[in-house]
Amino acid sequence: MAKKRSKLKIIPLGGLGEIGKNMTVMEYENDIIVIDCGLSFPDEDMLGVDLVIPDMTYLEDNFDRIRGIVITHGHEDHIGAVPFALQKFDVPVYGSKFTLALIEHKLEEHKIKNADLRCVVAGDTVELGCFKVEFIKVSHSIAGALAVAVTTPVGVVIHTGDFKVDYTPIDNEPIDIARFAYYGSRGVLALMMDSTNAEFPGSTPSEMELGKTFEKVFDVAPGRVIVASFASNVYRIQQIADVAIRHGRVLCFQGRSMVMIMRIAMELGYLKIPEESIVEVEKLKSWADNEVCVFTTGSQGESMSGLFRMAYANHKLNIGKGDTVVISASAIPGNEKAVGKVINQLFQRGANVVYDRLADVHVSGHARREELKLMMRVVNPRFFIPVHGEARHLHHHALLASSLGIPEENIFVMETGSVLELSKRGGKLTGTVQNGNVLVDGAGVGDIGAAVLKERRLLSQEGMFAIVIAIKKATGELAAEPEIISKGFVFTKDSEDLLEAARAVAREQALMFASCDRTEWGNIRNIIRSGIKGCLYSRTKRTPLIMPIFLEVD
Amino acid sequence: MAKKRSKLKIIPLGGLGEIGKNMTVMEYENDIIVIDCGLSFPDEDMLGVDLVIPDMTYLEDNFDRIRGIVITHGHEDHIGAVPFALQKFDVPVYGSKFTLALIEHKLEEHKIKNADLRCVVAGDTVELGCFKVEFIKVSHSIAGALAVAVTTPVGVVIHTGDFKVDYTPIDNEPIDIARFAYYGSRGVLALMMDSTNAEFPGSTPSEMELGKTFEKVFDVAPGRVIVASFASNVYRIQQIADVAIRHGRVLCFQGRSMVMIMRIAMELGYLKIPEESIVEVEKLKSWADNEVCVFTTGSQGESMSGLFRMAYANHKLNIGKGDTVVISASAIPGNEKAVGKVINQLFQRGANVVYDRLADVHVSGHARREELKLMMRVVNPRFFIPVHGEARHLHHHALLASSLGIPEENIFVMETGSVLELSKRGGKLTGTVQNGNVLVDGAGVGDIGAAVLKERRLLSQEGMFAIVIAIKKATGELAAEPEIISKGFVFTKDSEDLLEAARAVAREQALMFASCDRTEWGNIRNIIRSGIKGCLYSRTKRTPLIMPIFLEVD
Repeated sequence: MAKKRSKLKIIPLGGLGEIGKNMTVMEYENDIIVIDCGLSFPDEDMLGVDLVIPDMTYLEDNFDRIRGIVITHGHEDHIGAVPFALQKFDVPVYGSKFTLALIEHKLEEHKIKNADLRCVVAGDTVELGCFKVEFIKVSHSIAGALAVAVTTPVGVVIHTGDFKVDYTPIDNEPIDIARFAYYGSRGVLALMMDSTNAEFPGSTPSEMELGKTFEKVFDVAPGRVIVASFASNVYRIQQIADVAIRHGRVLCFQGRSMVMIMRIAMELGYLKIPEESIVEVEKLKSWADNEVCVFTTGSQGESMSGLFRMAYANHKLNIGKGDTVVISASAIPGNEKAVGKVINQLFQRGANVVYDRLADVHVSGHARREELKLMMRVVNPRFFIPVHGEARHLHHHALLASSLGIPEENIFVMETGSVLELSKRGGKLTGTVQNGNVLVDGAGVGDIGAAVLKERRLLSQEGMFAIVIAIKKATGELAAEPEIISKGFVFTKDSEDLLEAARAVAREQALMFASCDRTEWGNIRNIIRSGIKGCLYSRTKRTPLIMPIFLEVD
Repeated sequence: MAKKRSKLKIIPLGGLGEIGKNMTVMEYENDIIVIDCGLSFPDEDMLGVDLVIPDMTYLEDNFDRIRGIVITHGHEDHIGAVPFALQKFDVPVYGSKFTLALIEHKLEEHKIKNADLRCVVAGDTVELGCFKVEFIKVSHSIAGALAVAVTTPVGVVIHTGDFKVDYTPIDNEPIDIARFAYYGSRGVLALMMDSTNAEFPGSTPSEMELGKTFEKVFDVAPGRVIVASFASNVYRIQQIADVAIRHGRVLCFQGRSMVMIMRIAMELGYLKIPEESIVEVEKLKSWADNEVCVFTTGSQGESMSGLFRMAYANHKLNIGKGDTVVISASAIPGNEKAVGKVINQLFQRGANVVYDRLADVHVSGHARREELKLMMRVVNPRFFIPVHGEARHLHHHALLASSLGIPEENIFVMETGSVLELSKRGGKLTGTVQNGNVLVDGAGVGDIGAAVLKERRLLSQEGMFAIVIAIKKATGELAAEPEIISKGFVFTKDSEDLLEAARAVAREQALMFASCDRTEWGNIRNIIRSGIKGCLYSRTKRTPLIMPIFLEVD
């Protein structure tokens, strides 16, 4: 009997059933590589959580087999968990110059030194154990984005990373369709493709298309132009900066991440702006308003951002009448209200605001259906795995693949943690590894779970009501007046009656301690708890988190 | 010298700078009328708040001059505060049959009896003090919507309420453009107009346009069709019900408000469905899946709604493979993520989902720019007041009016609480009355303010940490071990070290009570509080709401 052939395992640890924390494991015998290592931002029900990273237990358990982490590009949902990963397993990290610069900055913040970062350019191939990984240029809303073609013992797997097809990119380096086609013509085992825009027909417009809008905005802006966009969208910033400079304006960069990324992008040559066009905020007064263009963060309405503070008169550059604000982004789902609030505030301060509902000031970085079809056709894979998407996106992406003739049994709509085993013969979902959301809150990584979040939710809805009942250990008599601490429940200064009523309930029911046997004290506690709950509810129709604290004193 | 002429005052108490809680006061000498009396739903920063109503202090102070409340239609943002208003001032309420039926239901819930509800139809005129109020038919996404033309001693004021221009409405009663034109030709002093869609070019499509989509959906649906929509959109329900019945399906209504409103609408003749087509949920089993159409609530992803529970297998009608779900609504800003989650869950359960991104399953009830222009032209007012909108909507609506030749000084972009005084000669903003959000939480109306909300926010982010330190009154010695209660901060079972560290800090620092003079005890409390804060922060990088509770026992 022939030796059983090994299979290639593909295990997504994030990015399926969600947009965020992308991370994919590829494994063959003794070798593992990881593609991307991202974070996601907390859902609104993850109260107080700072960020969310993938559960990496599977990788920790197999750390000695990991040959490297391959990063497709520098967005948070692809690099954000790198510091957490490197704290667990110290392996080389591969990415483009810009991607690595962003990772480096992140590692500094986490005080991680001596990470093994290895720079690649499109066309490079690196060998990681049995895997040969070639990097292929793609278009996306960040500089230095790459797809990967992974040659494995059972065939080639292509992972697009995030991409769009831009024939007229700002850096004049379009997506390398030819290279995808090269692999396609030689036979590709599996294609893993970005599903973000799988619901949208047609093609995402080229970044270049926005140029006309920006020209128009600068043609008529009577005073300052303030642009809010993602700091990492270097192409966007380049394009607007060029228009601004042509209109005789100097540029001023504001907002921590904007300044940081702009500096990195200029150092690395991704962003080309003459030094003399850049002015510090303190010196802007030397220029007339119509000679100024400010770039800032805050396109998502974030309350600590430059734009937000300028809108709410909490910044050196407060926005007002005569200013034109361009919000060159669209709201990420969940941020719509925050963005709307900033827009309203800007109008109220008399500024003119140009945003996506009114003008073409933003294009997506993700491929729409026609582009997805192009990629499917040129790569012509045997197996198709939609990635980077919520269930709805994966569903529509799978249907699209099916409509192009990929047999349904060769399309795998996976879930985070699922194990797909591929061989030359076929593919099969064979199980699940540990997976999930690891919540990061302050210094705690993974210590916040469902129980704590539930408490936060309860506290957030009706507040808390603690009442301290101190009784004498020996006799069960009250040792002091019941003490109440209430937060987030009622405005205590106006609620003395209510508090006194609760205190009276406690005082009266606590008499039982003295008159009952010690074995009954547990029951009495419960009676007091529900007595107070009833007292509060009948008067307020609210139920705060009630915490009777029983203290036995000598 | 001639007697000083009186002026007409227009005072919005809600609905400006926001979409929600519409309420407008019109006042002339001794007479006041109120147009609409709505609520809004709490913003995400109003933690635990049930709903928000306008501050009506100005009306309470002038209750004896109020001649009536005129309601344009039955949406919550126009009727939701009626029970709260009637508790303060018992005045007649005017509205269409459907509007009053919805108000009546609301009053029953609030146990308010004997309200003076007066039914009107389009074309009716009622005299309220010096005001003559005529009701004019408009198109909107609810049955029984009316605009008002108010003839005042200084001229006619038209308030459109919410409206769109639908030439082919489902009930075949289009908006009465002729009546608006009639007033326009005789001269209108001021026009107050719905700004909701002032950012959108073109016209909102007719409700009728959706028919084609619904036909297509029912043509191909292999099993049950489940429709989620706003219960009050009787036209939508009528239209889908007609298609469903033509396709040989019975109808089942689910969800509290859906059942309630459907019953009212059928009783009043707004909804025409043969009784034999309606089936109770318990009897649905007698029909094949492709003979069933279910109507339910939950188009906004609400977690207690029918659709949500069907999606999460918590309902008699759980959704699964073979089912087609139509979400016939668009997400209200702020609800995008909740709606997205339900859609994902439905796909995950194997259902097919049809929603606004994919098909024409929803049209707005509000006029877009071409419709707004039509109304401005036929009414041809001297003064223009954009209403029902956030700052951005009001801004664009004002620009639109200006582009049609209304002089800028005759356009008033007002704020809630502003007083506009109009006479035949001119108009002027002259002041402000008390105004704002009154938060309703449980039985409390207005008792929750900024302080309580701030506490809830703090609690929601990092939880709370209470430590009880009982000391003997006489000696300052500890009377018991410090007791800790923590919620929403750490998972206490895994954090015994941390709790013990905090206890140790408290124990050690509390020694000072015994060794210091009583006058120092206040200082010692502060030292202990910050000692515990430091202890917790250094270990967790989090700062819960810290509540040391000092108890002096005998």
